[in-house]
Amino acid sequence: MTKVAVIVGSLRKESWTRKVANAIIEVAPPSLQMEHVEIGALPLYNQDLDTASPPAEWVAFRDRMRPMQAVLFATPEYNRSVPAPLKNAIDVGSRPYGKSIWSRKPAAIVSVSPGQFGAFGANHHLRQSLVFLDMPVLQQPEAYINGVEKLFDGGKLTNDSTREFLTKYAAAFAAWIERTAGH
Amino acid sequence: MTKVAVIVGSLRKESWTRKVANAIIEVAPPSLQMEHVEIGALPLYNQDLDTASPPAEWVAFRDRMRPMQAVLFATPEYNRSVPAPLKNAIDVGSRPYGKSIWSRKPAAIVSVSPGQFGAFGANHHLRQSLVFLDMPVLQQPEAYINGVEKLFDGGKLTNDSTREFLTKYAAAFAAWIERTAGH
Amino acid sequence: MTKVAVIVGSLRKESWTRKVANAIIEVAPPSLQMEHVEIGALPLYNQDLDTASPPAEWVAFRDRMRPMQAVLFATPEYNRSVPAPLKNAIDVGSRPYGKSIWSRKPAAIVSVSPGQFGAFGANHHLRQSLVFLDMPVLQQPEAYINGVEKLFDGGKLTNDSTREFLTKYAAAFAAWIERTAGH
Amino acid sequence: MTKVAVIVGSLRKESWTRKVANAIIEVAPPSLQMEHVEIGALPLYNQDLDTASPPAEWVAFRDRMRPMQAVLFATPEYNRSVPAPLKNAIDVGSRPYGKSIWSRKPAAIVSVSPGQFGAFGANHHLRQSLVFLDMPVLQQPEAYINGVEKLFDGGKLTNDSTREFLTKYAAAFAAWIERTAGH
Repeated sequence: MTKVAVIVGSLRKESWTRKVANAIIEVAPPSLQMEHVEIGALPLYNQDLDTASPPAEWVAFRDRMRPMQAVLFATPEYNRSVPAPLKNAIDVGSRPYGKSIWSRKPAAIVSVSPGQFGAFGANHHLRQSLVFLDMPVLQQPEAYINGVEKLFDGGKLTNDSTREFLTKYAAAFAAWIERTAGH
Repeated sequence: MTKVAVIVGSLRKESWTRKVANAIIEVAPPSLQMEHVEIGALPLYNQDLDTASPPAEWVAFRDRMRPMQAVLFATPEYNRSVPAPLKNAIDVGSRPYGKSIWSRKPAAIVSVSPGQFGAFGANHHLRQSLVFLDMPVLQQPEAYINGVEKLFDGGKLTNDSTREFLTKYAAAFAAWIERTAGH
Repeated sequence: MTKVAVIVGSLRKESWTRKVANAIIEVAPPSLQMEHVEIGALPLYNQDLDTASPPAEWVAFRDRMRPMQAVLFATPEYNRSVPAPLKNAIDVGSRPYGKSIWSRKPAAIVSVSPGQFGAFGANHHLRQSLVFLDMPVLQQPEAYINGVEKLFDGGKLTNDSTREFLTKYAAAFAAWIERTAGH
Repeated sequence: MTKVAVIVGSLRKESWTRKVANAIIEVAPPSLQMEHVEIGALPLYNQDLDTASPPAEWVAFRDRMRPMQAVLFATPEYNRSVPAPLKNAIDVGSRPYGKSIWSRKPAAIVSVSPGQFGAFGANHHLRQSLVFLDMPVLQQPEAYINGVEKLFDGGKLTNDSTREFLTKYAAAFAAWIERTAGH
């Protein structure tokens, strides 16, 4: 069993990105124990606050993330890049220096858009951060979900080819984790 | 006179990036009326909160930015990309749909690093967002400030070649604003 | 009248990207005198060859480009980035040091894809090069052409909303050139 | 033993990037059988030529690359991105569709600059292509070589800390290959 943190970049309650993340959780192989980790309450990163007693929300997030063995990032695109709440979680988790909770944990990125382009810009900007954070990232299949509003009925994924894709995607992620965990 | 917002991506009180921004303000031509606009108190962007009565800090930021005619972004690099507080200001200012406070305002980016590489990753990720936001961005001179700690004595810029560069840079920005304002 | 070089990133004779470029030429305002500049015959850039007598194709390309006052780049995406022939033209035109034929010429980028995502990766990688080359680039409207094969009948653009978009796009480029030429 | 192709992005005979690649070959663990693969003679990629009898140089390059099990890319930066000759090798090797010679081969990137910034732009643009090509890329240590001219005496690496870094880098690459080969 691998403990996989699922981090959703949108804070909207009815976020389409969260629905996609939930659909992946449903179809993932049983070897992946996937759990949402919430990022909406984290104060903006400010090194001045990262003292012996940092904000309680930062401490809780870091404690929650530390035992995780892999990370699935599900992200929309805001202004052609990573949404601020997700970048903030990245930044909070990466500090203080030498105590990053991200290091060497295998990752996968699914980017989600109601329109076209599949949030390509957010997907690849996030990849650039994960190089620095030393997270081996699944390359293929890339996961760009377009026109997401048409794929669901309420919270339920009703598009069969998307479900099939996400099933393969989750299986590829499981294989990737097995190969790269603890690298 | 052009009202230029100066936005600093780091929230640290003794931020080197802020010191660089201040040095630019000092050497800028008198046609630029440069004013810091603070971003540290903005709650993380969440569309659910962007109702008829959004968070007071968002309203205040948007009101403060609306009359600005140009923007200088001064940014460090966190995890090879834009720091979360700066991305958050970008996201908050860009919404609600159709009411972006960024549109068509000329911009310049100075990226600042205590080490090498001049925060290149943050500089260019920010540029990608500014395409979407329809902000014409100064191309040359690019401004990457390396090894920033050695350039200052306390808050004072003591490195002459850096002062000379920033003077040219501010003049180029003023000329760029004149050409592209209201495009 | 502004002389605008049109550079197509694909070398295929029946290139969809070329068809899109031709459609833009057709709908452009008369103030833009648009001319294709071919890049397929340029030997790969090698500084060792950039002597007093460089390859004849480089000389011809640089001579042809020098009087141009603006550039429209039309590019497909190869492997999530700029196709080699286009990057080669960029590199050949940028040298020797101090004699770049790109400097200060206003530019626009249209990226073209038979599939989804509108060649977003190529579009934004090219933008990063144009920062260094000091070419002011049109920000909005961004031009990503998806599913290009369905927009044409033979060489003729038959999709009305695409024609309408390209007409607005060319007009915006003309206005951008007027504002930024010779910056 | 792993057969590792070494691909150098500069075509200059006295290329600093080649010198760095050679220094890595010298210090690499014996499990890595590193061999230069040359890319300077490849005609620019043009799909029209990719018929039953493509250019002989393309055939030779693809045949040479096919048995390789991993790839070290050593690249300078041209105009803030990947040099055309390297992008051309990427494009030629990726086609025809379904016959890419890159797929699933572990990779590492070292970027080299005579100045500052370590060719950061080339390094990360190349990474974006390798996502599509399904090549698992070493994340840490990142390898950006700055001020390269001062590190060598003739062809010989004389800077001890650089040699030490490259030794660790090559060892990390060997470990990465072992973990991800055949993923």
